[in-house]
Amino acid sequence: MTAPRPSEDALIARYFAPLAGPGGLGLADDAAVLTPARGEDIVLTKDALVAGVHFFADDPPGAVAQKALRVNLSDLAAKGALPLGFLLGLALPPDWTEDWLAAFAQGLGDDAARFACPLLGGDTVRTPGPLTLSVTALGSVPQGRMLRRETARPGDRLYVSGTIGDAALGLRLRLGKAADKGWVASLGEGERRHLVERYLLPQPRLALRDALRAHASAAMDISDGLVGDCRKLLGGVGACVDLASLPLSPAARAAIALASDLFDTAVTGGDDYEILCAVPPARASAFEATAEGAGVTVTNIGDVTQAGAAALFLGLSGEARDFPSGSFSHY
Amino acid sequence: MTAPRPSEDALIARYFAPLAGPGGLGLADDAAVLTPARGEDIVLTKDALVAGVHFFADDPPGAVAQKALRVNLSDLAAKGALPLGFLLGLALPPDWTEDWLAAFAQGLGDDAARFACPLLGGDTVRTPGPLTLSVTALGSVPQGRMLRRETARPGDRLYVSGTIGDAALGLRLRLGKAADKGWVASLGEGERRHLVERYLLPQPRLALRDALRAHASAAMDISDGLVGDCRKLLGGVGACVDLASLPLSPAARAAIALASDLFDTAVTGGDDYEILCAVPPARASAFEATAEGAGVTVTNIGDVTQAGAAALFLGLSGEARDFPSGSFSHY
Repeated sequence: MTAPRPSEDALIARYFAPLAGPGGLGLADDAAVLTPARGEDIVLTKDALVAGVHFFADDPPGAVAQKALRVNLSDLAAKGALPLGFLLGLALPPDWTEDWLAAFAQGLGDDAARFACPLLGGDTVRTPGPLTLSVTALGSVPQGRMLRRETARPGDRLYVSGTIGDAALGLRLRLGKAADKGWVASLGEGERRHLVERYLLPQPRLALRDALRAHASAAMDISDGLVGDCRKLLGGVGACVDLASLPLSPAARAAIALASDLFDTAVTGGDDYEILCAVPPARASAFEATAEGAGVTVTNIGDVTQAGAAALFLGLSGEARDFPSGSFSHY
Repeated sequence: MTAPRPSEDALIARYFAPLAGPGGLGLADDAAVLTPARGEDIVLTKDALVAGVHFFADDPPGAVAQKALRVNLSDLAAKGALPLGFLLGLALPPDWTEDWLAAFAQGLGDDAARFACPLLGGDTVRTPGPLTLSVTALGSVPQGRMLRRETARPGDRLYVSGTIGDAALGLRLRLGKAADKGWVASLGEGERRHLVERYLLPQPRLALRDALRAHASAAMDISDGLVGDCRKLLGGVGACVDLASLPLSPAARAAIALASDLFDTAVTGGDDYEILCAVPPARASAFEATAEGAGVTVTNIGDVTQAGAAALFLGLSGEARDFPSGSFSHY
């Protein structure tokens, strides 16, 4: 005998209504309502995550919830937007448990509070397939000021936040393939933990918002690998990117020292959720100072060249590198 | 040999970018942007649909797309909101084909145009499970004017739009259980088609928006069965609902005449996507006239009684009816 499952309404009342912001109306209506501040645009982003595709089904439930929210907050951060709230679509597989859901809601609530981004509404359904999450996050920017892709100008400097490649190496660690056993075993325990945690839980760079708004000419978050996302940011302009200047964590450096092919994983793998942006040279030092003041490390990794040119990537020895499939596809 | 699958970016460019509204930025950015009209609130609703749970996997792909959009538009209609646009989360199963996706996008685009509700953005991922859709729709209402649940007042009249029960009977038809073979076989071909089509493709009652805004004290759409949704609309007030006055289509009447237990399916089954609302008596004739002018039939099915009372449902012979589980759960 198993206890009867609570109804959808009971689930919502027990686990999700406590996370609702004022616009969520206690999740007791069919819709949420938001009163936009005058002179602000609404920025909208939506990311779907499927167990076994975007995260491991046995990841801690709180971390699953937080990753789903944070990948969307990362998009808002890159667009220069202040989070306003989010909607959650949750498709639960046949084997869900109340313990799992309680831990999921706890993690979600912690992040909703941490990032001042309340739950506004959503939908909970059942699925015969894997757990599937869909988050729509809303943010605000002053009218006409959302940061875009494809608006970098020749001469702009390219910057990334934080460190690159940790999550892609963490994913290889989690996958535990035989070919990776050597370098994995040689890493220190703390290094392994750093890489795995960076894959498990992104850190949306919302603190960079003011620096981006004030100084950047184009921005996006790096979710599908630095190389491919660079090309997406640039659109029709060229760039020269010095991969030797890429900020790597001590753990990523240690891994790459053990297996040099991991460098390519680091620059083409996904899940960094760092910011890639272009900044006019006259603004570069102000951008760096504002970012530093916000506690976010930013690193100049190259420059935008001219319209119609290609993106040139220089490898660790200064050689031109070719990345035919430079982008990781979650799809 | 099968042809290589297009990348996510190629899929989006080919099938979805043509449906994008101006705020969707050609779906070439990580986020969409919306400039709210001054003095307007943003209304948000999100519904998830899973193949085999909310629709049949072999339903026509265009109809699947349209149902996913329309169930959200139905929520906007009930809230008195004007559609502004939507985001689509699409998780494609391993056996998707480009033909399926082309037909899906065609149906979606037809409805986006029909309801002036452009695609703003979204996410396409793969899933090892069934096709899963999540739509977040946005609408606008004058500030503070979103219609709510639980705001009906004693003395208000209860109205429903259109006809009730068709979709629930259509679902029974589609399921084709042995116990239903008798009445199904006795129905006319046109009656069967009417019921099945009502299940396949809801008609969001956006035309009722002005009548609701001007005259209703509370409103919601009927998606989980009239009886259960009545209780949700009422919240803390009672009502007397005369089920004999319920508007039924000729096809539903014919089915119920053949098998009287179908009446309970009609009033507790889901998927009506009609509007249930409360209207103060002094506004009733103006509400009816405005609805008629908008081409939507509305029927008075009962009255709100007093705070703290229960919802009383009178059956076809005027007897008090008890519906212990009055609500269909999609969950």
